[in-house]
This record gives sequence, structure tokens and C-alpha cells, in this order.
Amino acid sequence: MILNSETKIYTDRESFPGVKRVAGKLAEDFSAVFGKKAEVKEIDGPVATGEGSVIIAATLRHSAYLDKLITNGDFDKTIIEGKWEVYSFMILPAKEGEPERLLIAGSDKRGTIYGLFHVSELMGVSPWYWFADVTPEKKSSVEITSKDCFVSKVPSVKYRGFFINDEWPAFGNWTFKHFGGFTAEMYDHVFELLLRLKGNYLWPAMWTSNFSLDGPGLENARLADEYGVVMSNSHHEPCLRHSEEWDLVKGEDTPYGTAWNFDKNREGLTNYWRGGLQRNGKFENIITMGMRGERDSEVLGATATLKDNIDYIKDVVTTQNKLIKETISVDLDSVPRMIAIYKEVEKYFHGDENAEGLKHWDGLDGITCMLCEDNFGNLRTLPEEWHRERKGGWGMYYHFDYHGDPISYEWINSTHIARTCEQMSQAYDYGIREIWIVNVGDLKPQEFPLSYFLDLAYDIDKWGQENKNAVKEYTEHFVDVNFPTFDAAQKKTTYNLLEGYTRLNYTRKPEALNPDVYDATAYDEAFAVLAKAGSLSSRLVRLWPDLKDDPLKDAFYQLVYYPVMAATNLITMQVLAGGNHYLAGIGAVKANEYADKIKKCIETDRELVREYHSINGGKWDGMMLSEHIGFTHWNDEECAYPVIMQVEPANRPRMIVTAGHGKKASQGGDWTRQKLVIDELLDPCVDTTFITVYNGSDKKLDISVNGVSEGRYVVENAAPDWLTVGLLGIGLKFDDMQPSDFRLMLTLDREKLKASGDAKNGVATTTLTIATEHTHVDVEVWAGECDDREMVPMLNKEQLSKETEPYIKDFVVTNELGLTLEASDVKKLSGSEGEYRILEDIGKYGSGFKAFPTTKYFDPEKGAPCAEYEFKISDASYEEMTEGGKVPEVKVTLLTAPNNPVVKGNPMQVGISVNDSDIKRIATVTDGYEGGERSCSQWAKGVLDQEHRVSFNVPVKAGTNTLRIYAVDPGVLIERILIRQTGTEWRYGYLGKTPEWIKKIIGD
Amino acid sequence: MILNSETKIYTDRESFPGVKRVAGKLAEDFSAVFGKKAEVKEIDGPVATGEGSVIIAATLRHSAYLDKLITNGDFDKTIIEGKWEVYSFMILPAKEGEPERLLIAGSDKRGTIYGLFHVSELMGVSPWYWFADVTPEKKSSVEITSKDCFVSKVPSVKYRGFFINDEWPAFGNWTFKHFGGFTAEMYDHVFELLLRLKGNYLWPAMWTSNFSLDGPGLENARLADEYGVVMSNSHHEPCLRHSEEWDLVKGEDTPYGTAWNFDKNREGLTNYWRGGLQRNGKFENIITMGMRGERDSEVLGATATLKDNIDYIKDVVTTQNKLIKETISVDLDSVPRMIAIYKEVEKYFHGDENAEGLKHWDGLDGITCMLCEDNFGNLRTLPEEWHRERKGGWGMYYHFDYHGDPISYEWINSTHIARTCEQMSQAYDYGIREIWIVNVGDLKPQEFPLSYFLDLAYDIDKWGQENKNAVKEYTEHFVDVNFPTFDAAQKKTTYNLLEGYTRLNYTRKPEALNPDVYDATAYDEAFAVLAKAGSLSSRLVRLWPDLKDDPLKDAFYQLVYYPVMAATNLITMQVLAGGNHYLAGIGAVKANEYADKIKKCIETDRELVREYHSINGGKWDGMMLSEHIGFTHWNDEECAYPVIMQVEPANRPRMIVTAGHGKKASQGGDWTRQKLVIDELLDPCVDTTFITVYNGSDKKLDISVNGVSEGRYVVENAAPDWLTVGLLGIGLKFDDMQPSDFRLMLTLDREKLKASGDAKNGVATTTLTIATEHTHVDVEVWAGECDDREMVPMLNKEQLSKETEPYIKDFVVTNELGLTLEASDVKKLSGSEGEYRILEDIGKYGSGFKAFPTTKYFDPEKGAPCAEYEFKISDASYEEMTEGGKVPEVKVTLLTAPNNPVVKGNPMQVGISVNDSDIKRIATVTDGYEGGERSCSQWAKGVLDQEHRVSFNVPVKAGTNTLRIYAVDPGVLIERILIRQTGTEWRYGYLGKTPEWIKKIIGD
Repeated sequence: MILNSETKIYTDRESFPGVKRVAGKLAEDFSAVFGKKAEVKEIDGPVATGEGSVIIAATLRHSAYLDKLITNGDFDKTIIEGKWEVYSFMILPAKEGEPERLLIAGSDKRGTIYGLFHVSELMGVSPWYWFADVTPEKKSSVEITSKDCFVSKVPSVKYRGFFINDEWPAFGNWTFKHFGGFTAEMYDHVFELLLRLKGNYLWPAMWTSNFSLDGPGLENARLADEYGVVMSNSHHEPCLRHSEEWDLVKGEDTPYGTAWNFDKNREGLTNYWRGGLQRNGKFENIITMGMRGERDSEVLGATATLKDNIDYIKDVVTTQNKLIKETISVDLDSVPRMIAIYKEVEKYFHGDENAEGLKHWDGLDGITCMLCEDNFGNLRTLPEEWHRERKGGWGMYYHFDYHGDPISYEWINSTHIARTCEQMSQAYDYGIREIWIVNVGDLKPQEFPLSYFLDLAYDIDKWGQENKNAVKEYTEHFVDVNFPTFDAAQKKTTYNLLEGYTRLNYTRKPEALNPDVYDATAYDEAFAVLAKAGSLSSRLVRLWPDLKDDPLKDAFYQLVYYPVMAATNLITMQVLAGGNHYLAGIGAVKANEYADKIKKCIETDRELVREYHSINGGKWDGMMLSEHIGFTHWNDEECAYPVIMQVEPANRPRMIVTAGHGKKASQGGDWTRQKLVIDELLDPCVDTTFITVYNGSDKKLDISVNGVSEGRYVVENAAPDWLTVGLLGIGLKFDDMQPSDFRLMLTLDREKLKASGDAKNGVATTTLTIATEHTHVDVEVWAGECDDREMVPMLNKEQLSKETEPYIKDFVVTNELGLTLEASDVKKLSGSEGEYRILEDIGKYGSGFKAFPTTKYFDPEKGAPCAEYEFKISDASYEEMTEGGKVPEVKVTLLTAPNNPVVKGNPMQVGISVNDSDIKRIATVTDGYEGGERSCSQWAKGVLDQEHRVSFNVPVKAGTNTLRIYAVDPGVLIERILIRQTGTEWRYGYLGKTPEWIKKIIGD
Repeated sequence: MILNSETKIYTDRESFPGVKRVAGKLAEDFSAVFGKKAEVKEIDGPVATGEGSVIIAATLRHSAYLDKLITNGDFDKTIIEGKWEVYSFMILPAKEGEPERLLIAGSDKRGTIYGLFHVSELMGVSPWYWFADVTPEKKSSVEITSKDCFVSKVPSVKYRGFFINDEWPAFGNWTFKHFGGFTAEMYDHVFELLLRLKGNYLWPAMWTSNFSLDGPGLENARLADEYGVVMSNSHHEPCLRHSEEWDLVKGEDTPYGTAWNFDKNREGLTNYWRGGLQRNGKFENIITMGMRGERDSEVLGATATLKDNIDYIKDVVTTQNKLIKETISVDLDSVPRMIAIYKEVEKYFHGDENAEGLKHWDGLDGITCMLCEDNFGNLRTLPEEWHRERKGGWGMYYHFDYHGDPISYEWINSTHIARTCEQMSQAYDYGIREIWIVNVGDLKPQEFPLSYFLDLAYDIDKWGQENKNAVKEYTEHFVDVNFPTFDAAQKKTTYNLLEGYTRLNYTRKPEALNPDVYDATAYDEAFAVLAKAGSLSSRLVRLWPDLKDDPLKDAFYQLVYYPVMAATNLITMQVLAGGNHYLAGIGAVKANEYADKIKKCIETDRELVREYHSINGGKWDGMMLSEHIGFTHWNDEECAYPVIMQVEPANRPRMIVTAGHGKKASQGGDWTRQKLVIDELLDPCVDTTFITVYNGSDKKLDISVNGVSEGRYVVENAAPDWLTVGLLGIGLKFDDMQPSDFRLMLTLDREKLKASGDAKNGVATTTLTIATEHTHVDVEVWAGECDDREMVPMLNKEQLSKETEPYIKDFVVTNELGLTLEASDVKKLSGSEGEYRILEDIGKYGSGFKAFPTTKYFDPEKGAPCAEYEFKISDASYEEMTEGGKVPEVKVTLLTAPNNPVVKGNPMQVGISVNDSDIKRIATVTDGYEGGERSCSQWAKGVLDQEHRVSFNVPVKAGTNTLRIYAVDPGVLIERILIRQTGTEWRYGYLGKTPEWIKKIIGD
């Protein structure tokens, strides 16, 4: 059938008002797409054949029309009956004078609503049409065929929603500017969005606002109920009353008293809670139970014992249950309730040997236990097996935005949905299926991950871990839904931009970036990150003019342009600031170029905020007010732009030389000269390195390399023929590069090296003298013949001893002098009791492996999943390692995702063996580790660094070695394995060897 | 008699050519002063009465005229005969047809020359007329009366001279530009200057120059000899040959061979030395003996024993003596020779238990042993008593300029002549009277101290330590000689400027300054130094226009303007850079104001160099080329301008508060607020302190103090009436100060405090809350009633314990919280075996005391000099100190000048007792201390910091305590005594409590 400007929408007289309201929304979508609002009519007997096609929205038991279809055998009600939020989407053929009809038959109110919005989807209306200005494509008609017909699945998770939180200054200012407050006029858009996203559950904004008073009055709550949006208050606001509300009503001469303490003010609080239940109990809610201190704090003082606290909560919950019976229903089980097992309440839930925890208390039966991740997207303690099937089930409170330790993130999206997929699929595995709620902060900048979260909760089979392409497909889906009119190339670019900025932001949250994060020299990671950020923004800049007249321009601005530009600009600023500080420290005037660029970045950041606030006539004015640069503390207090350093050029020509990725600079003066050493070419994976020549003055430097001062592309005859000395940059020659700074690229040809006979024990040495008239710096280059990329590169004794010689104290130990294995480099996977799966496009480094089922503990000796990696030790290294009867060993470092144990105190072990050695269990988190606990430094560092690290030595043999990693405890996700000579250290660096995904530059 | 344009100068036919030459110089002085060059005539029988007055320059035994006067009984030759460099200056009355004659009768050539230049002095011609453009005043006549007649004293030191050294890039470029090299044309000016300064001895420039080849040819040496300038080569250039010369003549096929090693090339070196002696032996020299490695290094390798080295030197000296006998005179004792006991040669001189040192070897008899200070103006090992009277005597090699560790100083003068006076007087006391030579680097910027050095060597009674006003008088003398036409006020200002910049430069050499030296907050020393520097430069700027047409303008520029402007500008730049870095660190946008000022300072520094090079038609072009900013190493390699930091203003209004001299800043946010504590007012010496409010944004801050936000001068009612809260700046009120930064001055009225009754145990506490709309910082002020300025202020137990409370971890312990006693605060001096003298206007802090005679070791129990200082301990502090039976103690810190022991290894002890305690000997230098040895960190730090510090605890009683300091070892100069609560530390600061001399601001 054809939908077009003549289509009519029918509801029943008995239809829920919410269904009627949503039918109206659909009618407006017709206006947006077809240019004319669809007529919404109340069905009254058979539908007459008319000019337009017909949509009938019905709900089981709320539709005489549907009843009649059932009675007539035209509809089999069993396909939906008794199911949660299901709808049948079918075309009824013309019959008995009635025309062909699109029948949407919901099992319940929201089933019907989802069905109605499914029509919108088919018409190409994005859930974000209002909240991100995704203007639908104008069409003359849309055809619905039998292929579009289906019965929807029962949603994977029963209650699915989000929490508008930490809404100041952004969301708060925005809604006051446009809607005069947190009013029903504003919430109307929120409810609609939620339902279009197939969610059903909401925690409203709660700072300086009262959902049930601001509508005005009860209008917010009433409207939510009409829409079928299930409301809760946040985890510390029990019995349908709001945190801010308490301050409004409490008082000496009120029924409520003043103390937020059930011991001291039992009567007052009972009155207070009763009032909330009486007022809002008539609506569909999940009632928050229990009690925490005011404004997210502990309720009892420091002297209270664990048992005191547990008893206190029991007393509170018992009272609240009684109040619910009294005010809402004697059938408690029919009243959805939840208790948040959050922060200190978790201790009360688990108890200890002296105090039985709440989890064993039957007073919680029927109340959903709401767990929480660590506020940074990593699950914490999960339901134990015995407890997974409890009455009331489990919920998960997740975060895309957080205001708290170690560093808040409340600006744009910094979640990579691959981690959400991995973690929330695991939550589902652990039986958390009753409630999923995600904190989206100000809502607006989280369009992408929020869409994913709700779609995942709605259909975990489609978007969860079991679909190994879920993340990729979802990202494409999101692009398709929101930019349907883009051509394939534009969609691809949009995809790359979305993926690119989210992964960069995931790698380090923007707020937690500072000039010291990406090391200015180590691993060249600063350049890699700059190049990545630059490739995203420059691609965007090329695309942007094409969208000048595109109806989706504003949508693209909000969903792609702003986050990509703002994130890459911020990253660029911080990385440049790191470089600026480093260059200022060595006296390179290039620092000043960086200084100018940093200032531009700061201006750009401010300009982007102004621009965001001005688009679409200022519709989003206020929404980007969150501070986002240089948090020095958990919140934005004392946040700081990077200090910008300036270097005054020296009075005379001054050359400054650095070698490879080393920090050390030498100016080559007679008395201060330092020999620099490059050992990077000992690494079989490294063929090129470089020498950087900076200018410390504004005078021209006349540079020569081993006496050669002529060159274009290549400096001829400056080095042995196995080492090419090139000039970086196309068409450059020495003269072009003065007085600016440049790199001499050193490229090793190992075939030529072998042929030359220059190597002794596989290693050749040559010295490049970089000279000006009065100064020179010798750079000693060590080059290895070995080109076996599985070989662990090592320094020989003589080289190691040079580290102690004063003239090369600042000896360059490079990124590569050690073996970096990515999870995806695995040679073999095995295991009879479960399996290791390689997850692609996840984490900081680009891949990871994790044991499945995620709920299982394995015995590494008994069929546990096993991943095998190979590395080689050269005979020469082996010989030196065994000198004096020593056991030859290498140092292995595992880089794991910052996942938390599924049970408190679990060490997240893996089993390790090399070759035929016994399997040794290695804990991947520190003793006493506690996810989400700010005093736990490994956790705090982990959520900022997006990794945990553990190092240990393993015995090796000469030749090929097999490293076997066995699953033991659940939840461990290993991303990288580093192997290195014992007694040496990895240089500092945030990334280390540049991950492939960062190297990937977006082309056209 | 009247000197005027008609005066005639007579010399004898037998007169030394040098005397004739100098008579010619005097004649030219007549031209400069009277407008007409005096006629110089050879005397030939009686002088005829003519038109002008008559000067006769005669030398005993070289003047027939003088012989006749003697014969006639008109001149008593015994007053000069046999004396070194003496002249009689007398007016012979008209007699027997001869007119009145001014007779200058020299005991020897230089006696006559000094007498001739004395006429110049009387005419008002400065020794610096050419070398600093001190244009003499035009006069019509000068009268010489009998009051001007005298017989000059024998100079205190026999050979007095300077060393032009480290002459690149400044002196070298200058002389090549103007004289084509180190030629006689240039040296003519140097010799003349030397003689006018009453010196007689020179070490010539020696880098890339050869005194005896560059004249051209031997002309330099010949001219020196004619002038009567005694030449040596520097300490490592034996036998009248030059360091650079060796490179020119050595070679396989030459008589000299190639090795600079007497063991390996005995014949070649013998030939080489013989050649030097033959060539230059005919001139007046002091021949350098012995041998060092090439270019100031050790000659034998590392494996040689001490005895090997001693034997080697003996062999060399024996050979050299033989060569001298062979080429110059068999009477060795008639040939002045010297050997430098410098660097490694000192070890050979002293020997050890296994190897008898050279000092016991009779081969050195008759050779002057040339000692050296530590290159920074501090004497080192001095002649022991048994050895002081040795044949050949002693010399001292001193430095006003040095190229070496720990940091070179080769730019403008950074010597305070008070230290030269103190140290060189001591040298004289130790019998060092044969040779004094001072390294003046490029010569030019050392006009003032060089004048002093040579005058001191010429007349130690007048300018040495025995004249306690010597330094003050000399400075006035220098001003009088060079700026005779200035009025009294101008002279006073010039005096203040000269003294001011030299003391600032002495306090820290300009090259060794960096942003971290003067602490940005501690003791407010950065402000004190800025104010001092600013007062000098602003006074200068006010004076300068008055000199626009003054003939002395160029002289003033060189002697005063440039050094004062350049030094104060450099100091200002470095201090501002320290402030800039501190302010950038706390996020205060005031950092940017500093940044702009630093840039201006850098430009000013360069502009001043250009200006110096351009004055007087470019006469001094090249002379200021020495690098002088931010040495990071001993020499100028890698020297660096300060890094300049910039702060980006925060997006929202941001207040930043610091309290007193504390580093800690708080922005007063809800979560990051820190309480600041000021304890400075517990110190009886402190009545005022302050709170500084910075702006972290470019927005206006609406500040209130305890709720009061109105005020002009004083913020009324913000604090108890005993604490006045004022606004810094005349006529300021709150509104004037927005959005810039300001200080709230806190002034304590102790009388009001006592009257208020607010104090508990003598201490009152009040809190000032500095607030903006959204932030506030509490500053807790502790104020003490005690106003006894001898009281050692201490924190009580409760206050001390607060240091451990987290909220005041960054607790302000101030400059004043402890007692600072200046040397001049002494209560009583005593001692029967010697005396302590208080030296005024010396050292870093302004006074010092030292034991005399300086050669004496004292037993503190037996009549040693003793200095008594008093301090008080309050009953309350005493009570707490004795709790639990503890021995009550305070920590005493002695701040001494960086003097070195007079004997190697001497610990420079003093005796200490408090009240009636036993005298304890305290070493003021560390164990193993070695002055001048770069590996000795206390020495190296000492010469940069201009002090040594030693701390120890002493027992105390309640009430008044007497600290007695007894002399033990010679040479100790104590400048300051700090007394402080044990268990607490002095805050870092370069100066500590601001010395009075720095506080003294130059007025008009």
C-alpha cells in the first residue's frame, strides 16, 4: 500500500490517550514528509473506502475494531497477547467494502506506540528529527509491502531509558531559555524522543528542578503517563519525590520535620514519602526505594556500623513497602519498584561476615536491584549465579556522562559503542534484563551512543556481542537513519568521522587530556594523534561546503561536525601544548609556531561553541556550555587551558638535534656536545627512523650531514649505502628548509646491510655527524640485519653497557625495541569449556580477546579457552641471557581493558605458560582493587588511561617461543601483549607503538 | 706654580725613552685641558726663564740635571734612592736664573712615569680618558702649591697588573675592527692605562693571539718595555712564549717537535723555551716557569703519580732556570720569575705524605709563587706562617671575570669591591706582596673594580681593610676622578648607582640568574629585588636627560648608564620570568602582563648592546658581545632566555587567592577550596602582611571581604579592630581595581589586640573570607600580641599540629617566623688575643664580622674574639619545649661569606655557646670542602649563592639568651644568624628577610 498525503490514521475511542497523541505525531510526520498532515480519525465501524490509504492503530483490549477483527478471524491475537510491548504490523487486504488497511495491533499501549513510530521510520523520519534537526526527506509517497510486515519481538530488556543529569550549565540554561524551565512543553519532546528510540523509561533532570512541580504542577508527570513513559526518580530520590523538593517542604512547623534521617525523623519522612506516593502513584512509575543521604551522599554518620546501616535500610524499605500498599496497591508485586545498589549501598547489599547483607533479605523480593557500572562504562560487581533469577530482577545504571572522580566528562560523547556493546552484552549475560538506564548528562551531545544503547536494550540479538559486526552495522545504521539522502561516499565519510572522533575521545576523554598525556617524542605518538585528528577535521572541512544547502546541514552539524571539529581541535591543542612545552624546554623556536597554533585552537573552541549556539535560529543556545578543557580536579573547578610557552631566539645561529624518538637534544657545542644514539633500527619491525634538526635562533643554519650539505630528497653519500638519509617533504632540498626545522629520515635497507658485510654479530654501527659552521652533533646509528618481525629485539651486552656511559646517558630506547603483539596477532585459539573470541575494532589498541561464556570461571588445566602467540629469541640474545647459568627470561606485559571484576575482590586472573612451562596464574588487577572506588588508584588511572597493565617475567628458549594465555576469571579483555628484554624499561608513552586504527587516515 | 697652555716639560737626554714617551702623553693632556699641547724639550743645562711654567721629569742616575741638583744640595736623593717606583714631587724655587720648576724625581723609570701621570691627575685627567672617554674638563690653568708636594710611598705590592683574558668575542672583535688585531697600536692604549692606574705589570691577551708576534712582530713587547710595563705570559705559558705560538711552530721537521710533554720531547721544548728567552729576555719580564698541559689542562696522563708530576715539574723548572742563566743572566736572582700554583699544580706544590711537595724544594727559591683565588674572588690556600717570608715571595692571581665552572662571568662587572678589599687585604696580611694580577676579561666593563684593585695594590693602607671607610671613600673617589664636573647631587646619584648595580650583580652574577633564583613568593624577595632594580633604573632615567650635552656623557654611558641599565634590566627580566612561571602555574592572567614585560626586557637588552656599540662613533663596537643571559652550563653554550608563559583567561570569572608569602593559591570553588593560613603576624617583627587576589579570567570580579565590598584605602569593619584591611595603592577603591589583581594589606595593631582581649595565650585568630558571587576562600590569620623584636617567634603545639591537617597542608611559614640577626645586630664584642670587627656594607646581607689578625688561629677558651647576640624565648614556648623532659633547643643557622679555608682541609670553625653552655666548635664548611674545585658542590653553590650555610641546635632557657660566637679558624666572615624553632624548616628563598641595603631606594 502507498502512504502519502492522503493517508488517514484511525484510532479507537477506547485507545489510550497516549496512542492518540502519538498518532498525532505520526500525522505530523506525514506533513514533514508528504507536505500535508495526515488526518487522524476515530474509528467508528468499518472503514470507508476513500481517497487515501488507511492506517489503523489498535491496542489489544482497547479496540472494538480489533476485537471485531479477532472475532472475524482476521487477526490472530495470540501473536501478541500477553506479550510486553509487542505489535503486529500487517496489511489487511480490502474486504467487505473496507479498503486495504495497515493494521498496527499492539499488545499494550507502548506496543501500539512503537508500531506507530515504526511507520515514521519507514517514512524516513529519524527519532532525532526534533532533537537534532534531522529534517526528513520530502517524498510523494512511501510504499509498504508485505515484506514490511512482521510481529515485533518482545524487547530484550523490560525498562529501557535514560537519565538527564548534571544538567547545568548546558541543558538547564537551554531549557530555561527556550521553555522557561523544566516544563512539560520541553519534556513533550523528550518523551517523544524516548519512545521513538524504543525506550520507555526516564529519570528526569533533578538539579534545581522538580519533575512533579515544574510542568507546571504535575503536568510533566501526567504527560509522561499519557505517553506511556515510565518514570523513576534517580537512585537517591525515593517514593516519587525529588531531591530538591525536600528543601522546599521541610521545616520545623511542617508535617515533614527537618532531618533527612529516618532514625531521627521517622514520622516526617513517612509523611513526605506518603505524599509522593499519593501524588504520583496513579501514574506508571518504577518507585525508587531505600534511602541515601541528601544529594548523593551517605545517610548515617561515620560511626555507624555496617549492620546499623543495613538495619536502617531494612527499616526504610519496610516502611516504604507499607506506604505503597496503603497508597497504591495491596498487591505489592504489581507495583514496579527498584533499589539502587549504588556507592555505599553496595556495601549494605553484600554485607560481611558479621552483618548479613540486604541481598539475603526477602524484603527486597519483587524490587528490582539496580546495579551500576563504575561511572565510566565498565561493569562492576554483577549478579552471582545463585542470585541471577531473583524476583524483581536486576537493573543497570550506565553512564555516557559523569560528574565525579577521577575526572568528570559532561561535554560531547566520549564513549565508543564497541565498549558499550561488550559490557552491556555481558550485563545481559548476567541476567540484568529488567531495567537499563543510561546517564546522558545534557542529552544532546549523546545522540549516537544513546541511540545505540536503547536499540541494544530493545534487541540484544541484533546489536549485541553475538553479532560480531554489530558495532560497524549499527554505525552504518545510524548514518542511514539520520542521513538517508547522503550518497554512498558521503555516508562512508560520515561513518568514518563518527567512528574516528568517538575512538579518539574514548582513548582519552577530552576533559582528562592535558599537554602531558600524549608524549611529545616517545613513539612519535604525538604526531600520530595529530595526524589522525587532522585527517578527520580536514576531511570534514572538505565535505562541509557540499552540505551548504542540504536540509540535513544542521543535523550534520550537531551529530558530526561539531563533535568532530571540537574534539579534534581540543586534541590538537593539547598535543601541540605538549610539543610546545617540550620544544620550549630544549630551546627550539618551533615552540613559537606551536604557541600560535594553540592560541588558534583555543579561539576555535570558543568559536565552535558560539556557532553551535547560533544554528537553527539559536534553537540550541546554551547546550554546549559545559567546560571541557584541562580538568585538574574531578570537576571543572580550576580547569585550565594549557599554559603556552614562548622561546626567545638565541642571538647566534643555534642548531638543536634530537635523534629518533629520544627526548635528549644536543646543540653540539664544544663543551656541551652529547652523542646521541639511535637503536631503533635494531628492531626488525622498524625500517625508518629520523633525526630532527631544530633551529634555536632565527638565523639561517648551514647544515651538513657527514660533510654533505647538498641534497634534494636524498642526501647522497652521507652514510653507508644500506642507510638512506632523506629529507622529509616532497621536493625539499637543504636550502628550502632553512632556517626552519626539518627531519632527516633514515631508511634502512636490510638486504644491502647484509650484502655490505658491515655487521658484526648482526649489528652494524654508523655515525652521522650533523654539523653547522661551529657546532656538530654525532648521532650513532645501530642497525640490525634481522628482519624477522616475530623476533624480540634486544640490546647486546656491549650496547646495554653503553647506557651507563655518561656520554650516552640519554640513550634512545625506542617504541619498537621490544615486541608489540596485538590481540589480533593470535596464532591459534582453542578450548573445550568455552572460547576466546577476538573482538575487532575495540579498545585503545584496536582489538582484544575475551572468554565466552562471559559468566564462566575456567580452570586453565581443564579445557579453558586458550590463545597462542609466538615470538622469537635470537641465538645470540639467548646465549647472553644464559651466561653464568642464568635462567633466560623475557618480560611480558599484558595491556587489558579497564574492566572490573564481576565479583568484588576477584583478581581477574589469566593463566600463562610459555612453551611447556607450568601454567601460572597472573592477576591482572592489583590486590585490593575496587572498581569505581576513587581511592583505588589502579581503577582511577585505568578509566582515564583506558587500560590496566601487568608485567611478569617468563622463561624462554632460543628460536620460536609459544606464549599461551588461558582464561581463568570472567570479564578479562586483553588488548595488547608486550615482550621485552628483562632489566630494561618501556619508555613512557600513552599509546606506545601507534595502533593501526590511528594510522588509518580517512581518504576521500 | 701655575700649569697652563704655556707650560713646558723637560726630560733629560739620558731619560728612559718610556719617560720621554709619557712626558709626551702628559703634553697631550695639556692639550686636552688647556687647549694647547705642552712643549716637551730635552733639558740642556739650566732651564731658561720663559713664558710658561716648567716641569722637569728626572730619574735618579738617568738625569744629569738631577745629578747637578743633588750635587748642589738642592735635592736630597736619599728620600728616593734605592726605593721601588718612588718619586719626589716638589717645586724648586726660582734660583740662579732658573725659574720656579716642578721637579718630578723618580727613583727609577716607573717612579718618574707615575710622577708625570700624577700631574695629569692634578689637572683632572682620568686614567680612563681614552679607555672610557672621560673627557677632561677644559681649564685655563691649574695651580700647584706646596701642599701638593710629597714623596710618594713605595707601592704596597711590587708588581701590580691585569690580565686581558677570554677576549673573545668582545675584546677580540673590537680590536680587530679598530686596530686590525692585537697590535701595538692598541696595546699603546693599554700600557698607558695601566701606568696611569699605577700598575706596572700585564698579562696580554692570549687566545688566537701572540703578543710577541702581533705588534706586528716584536713591537708589542718592545713598546711595553719602553713604557716600563713588565710582561708575563699567563700561568700556563712558560719562558716568554705564547700558548698559540706553539701551534704555529711545532712540527715533525722543526727544532721543536710536536709533543707538549717534557718527558717525550725534552729537546724540542728546550729549544722552544730557549727561543722565547732569547727573543724576549732583553725586555723587562717576569718569566713564567714550570709547565701545564696545553690550553689550561694537566700535562701528564691520568696514570701518573703525584711524585711523577712533582719530579716532572722539578725537571722542567731546573731546565728553565738553566736556560735563563744561559740566555739572560747568570745571576738568576736578578731575573724575576714566577710559577703559578694553579689548579693541579697546587697538588704538586703541597705534595702529600708520600711525595714531598714543591714547596719544600729549593729549586723554587727566588721564583715568585703565584697563588690563585677560587676564580670567583675568594682566596684559597694561603702561605703558611713558616713559608710567608720565602725568597721570591708570593703572588696572587685574582678574577673579575672568569671563563669556567660553575658558571662563567664575562660580561659587565659583578664584583663588589668590598669583597675585594676584604679578601685582598687578607692576602696582603698573609705576605702576598710580590705580584697582584687580576683577570679583567675584556677589560672594558671592569673599569671600576680594576681601578680599585690597582689602587689597593699601590696603597693598601689607604684603600685596604684597615681603613674601615675604604670602600665608600674609594667609590666617591672614583666618581670624583671620572665625573669631576658633576654637582654634588649628581655625584651622589652616580655613587648610588655604581654601588647599587655592583651589589645587585654581586648578590648573584647576571649570567647565573634564572627565573628560579629569586623566589616568586617567599619573603616577597622578588618584589624587593624588582623594586631595587627599578629604583636604580628609574633614577638613572631621570638623570640621563641632564647629561644630554655633557662632555662626560659617553663616559657616564660606559661607566654607569650601560652597566646599571643592562644589569637592572636583566635582573628585572629574570625576576619577572620567575613570577611569570609562578603565575602561569596558578592560572593568574597577570602572568601575561609579565610576559609582555619580559619581552620588552629582552628587546631592551639587545637595544642596549647596539647602543653601546654605537656611542662615540662606534669606538666600542664589539665590546659588549659577551653572552650574559641564562647560562645553563659553565660557559655560554646552550645559554637561554627565560621561557615565557602565557595563560588563557578562564571562560567565567575566576578569583585566585594567595595568602602572605605562601605559594598556595585557592580559587575558592566548592570542591577545591583550600583554607589558607597566615602565621606571619605571630612574628614580633612583622606588623603587616597581605592577601593577593588574582584574576584567572578577563571578567570583572566582584570581591567582598567578610561581606564588605566597599572601601577606599581601608575596608571598614571587615576584621576585628586590631587588624586593618587596606587596599594597596593610593586612592584605590574596590571598583578601581577590577578586573585587575590587587593586594589586601593586613596591618596588625598590637596595642589594640592587647586591649581587645581576643588573644588566648598571646595569640588571636581571625578569619577573612574573600568572596565572589560563586566562590570564596577563607584565610585564617594568626596574630601574636608579643612585640619584642628579640623574641624568637614559634608556633604552639596546636598550630604546629595544623600543619598535618590536610586543609592547611599548604600552610604559610613565612620569612619572618624565626629570628633573623644581622651581623651588625651584635650586642658586645670582646677578646684579648684578637678582635672581631664588624664590616659594614659588605656581602649579600649588608654586614659581616671577621676576626683579626686574619692570620691567627684562636682558642675560644683563651681570649679569642667573641661576638655576643641576644634572643628571647617566651615562657609559653619554653614550657612546650620542655614537655616530657625534653632539652629545650632552637636551631641556629650561620650564613657566612663563601670564603675558603686558608689551609686546605681547614674546617673554618667557630666556637658556639649559648648562655653558660660549653663552647662547641662548629665547622662552617663541609667535610672535604675544597675551594675552587668544581666537584665540590658546597663551593660551587657557594660562589653562585654568595654564601655558605651551617645549621645546628643549641640549648636555650626562657627569657633572654646570649649566643656567643668565638673565632677559631681564620678567614670566616659571618653575615647573618637565623634562629628558629627546631623541627621546622626555613622556606626556600634566595635572600630570606629582605636585607636593608636592598630596601634602600635611591631618591633624588
